[in-house]
Amino acid sequence: MDEFDLIRRFFRRPAVRAETRLGIGDDAALLAPPPGQTLVATVDTMVAGVHFFPDVDPAALGYKLLAVNLSDLAAMGAEPAWVLLALTLPEADSDWLADFAEGLFALAGRYRVDLVGGDTTRGPLTLSLQALGWVPEGEALRRCGARPGDGIYVSGTLGGAALGLKMLKGALAWRDEAAVERLLRPRPRVELGLALRGLAGACIDVSDGLAADLGHILAASGVGALIEWDRLPLAAAVRRYVAETGDWRLPLEGGEDYELCFVLSDAAAGKLARRLPETGVAWHRIGTIQKEQGLRIDKGGMVIPLPPAGYRHFRS
Amino acid sequence: MDEFDLIRRFFRRPAVRAETRLGIGDDAALLAPPPGQTLVATVDTMVAGVHFFPDVDPAALGYKLLAVNLSDLAAMGAEPAWVLLALTLPEADSDWLADFAEGLFALAGRYRVDLVGGDTTRGPLTLSLQALGWVPEGEALRRCGARPGDGIYVSGTLGGAALGLKMLKGALAWRDEAAVERLLRPRPRVELGLALRGLAGACIDVSDGLAADLGHILAASGVGALIEWDRLPLAAAVRRYVAETGDWRLPLEGGEDYELCFVLSDAAAGKLARRLPETGVAWHRIGTIQKEQGLRIDKGGMVIPLPPAGYRHFRS
Repeated sequence: MDEFDLIRRFFRRPAVRAETRLGIGDDAALLAPPPGQTLVATVDTMVAGVHFFPDVDPAALGYKLLAVNLSDLAAMGAEPAWVLLALTLPEADSDWLADFAEGLFALAGRYRVDLVGGDTTRGPLTLSLQALGWVPEGEALRRCGARPGDGIYVSGTLGGAALGLKMLKGALAWRDEAAVERLLRPRPRVELGLALRGLAGACIDVSDGLAADLGHILAASGVGALIEWDRLPLAAAVRRYVAETGDWRLPLEGGEDYELCFVLSDAAAGKLARRLPETGVAWHRIGTIQKEQGLRIDKGGMVIPLPPAGYRHFRS
Repeated sequence: MDEFDLIRRFFRRPAVRAETRLGIGDDAALLAPPPGQTLVATVDTMVAGVHFFPDVDPAALGYKLLAVNLSDLAAMGAEPAWVLLALTLPEADSDWLADFAEGLFALAGRYRVDLVGGDTTRGPLTLSLQALGWVPEGEALRRCGARPGDGIYVSGTLGGAALGLKMLKGALAWRDEAAVERLLRPRPRVELGLALRGLAGACIDVSDGLAADLGHILAASGVGALIEWDRLPLAAAVRRYVAETGDWRLPLEGGEDYELCFVLSDAAAGKLARRLPETGVAWHRIGTIQKEQGLRIDKGGMVIPLPPAGYRHFRS
């Protein structure tokens, strides 16, 4: 089986979208975004041994590779439409590829995303996905519009993925399947991103940890923030972990939750509440944008400055 | 130096195109292709030890990574506009990155291509580039429109890159700098691709070797072809190699020349000749599309059937 057979067998499927004029099978794909829309483009890479355990369930890997890219599009308020897949594999294992494709297409189908191109090469297991979507002109969610007095919000819950990682690494004496699932199959907040169009002053997805990612909003907007620790939405297992270990930083600094962190004026928050059924997920106010630069945490009445942190490659 | 510093220092540059609404620095890029154009998207990956020698000049690598993607866009008749870069590196070597970026941006500048996004991760050296461009609606060059009687054409010369690779591997007693340069710094035929709009019945770039790539056109069009070996455009070093070794298959089966192979009716060939100054490169007729399926070579009056061949990953 060579690379052309591989592509045909596992990745070439009929297009779902009418905007897909030509998918896999030529030198490049032909795509027709609707008029009046701005194209939104992102890329994320996952490397074996760095972003995932080499023996991870390939279906979960295919799912997650797409999920983290859809999360970036959601953070811009974009509707996802297309992906291109760069797959570097040590060997062509049919079972592995079938499972990987199944995981990828299961999530792609949910959001009507077409896989329209890719490149399959031999080498150390590395997966890179480019995602394309669109947003009406002028409605993209940026990082630079947070203003003092705005509320800071986060979707879903925080810290679950970081806790799940500790469990998979065997660092804890107990295991919570929901936390592990958070790590392996994060839910991209696509519907919430769409609902935030025209409302959020700033938005980002929480991939490197809340403190780090909110830090990008603060830096881009030239403002600071106060987060109230008691308002952080935490799953039961994360509450238990924090209670047992005293590690209250986990929900602030743990990465890979892929929730959206966003900023709303009070008027915009009221409007979002009325759009609630569209958002597909709970969202909670966790703090307030302040004029004074820097990120501060109110922990039981004590205000603690928190330097921007989070997972970074090549940190010296 | 962490990944954010890396990106800022080497890859974040002011946008050249007005259509680039937002480049590197948010969750995704915002891009505005002109109205009436179809978006063209492709991705190509290069893996150390597979696609290049790990000690290759990083400037040549940055150049080539972009060149091979621009070549795919050229084969569709597309004007290149944007790229996203997925860079997986074993370590953050500033000198290496500076040279790599210099090579990439030198070619990007020539075609007014903006680098609008990317992902930098730690891992085995793997480079993946996604390229986006556009072509007027309905004018993209496909593979499926070759008709019996059409002429088969190729740009530039064939076999140089494969010969250069033999030289770098030490398989020959002599060295030709032009052949090595063909391998390391292929010229994407962007101008020719644009000139072929509305003229070529089919077009592909020669990345896996003429026989393999022309084979894709033949398969997609449901036709066959006769190639006249004596008409193949060969550089002096390739002529010398063939004369010395008798290996006449090299220009047919050697990959990585990144020329365009295309099909024209006689009327269209006349029109292309009048557009000559725009094409930026010489082009030569090498054969004829035939009704009878399969690829045949006329070698000094003897007709030899040639099975589709070329470099393929995972060939068993």
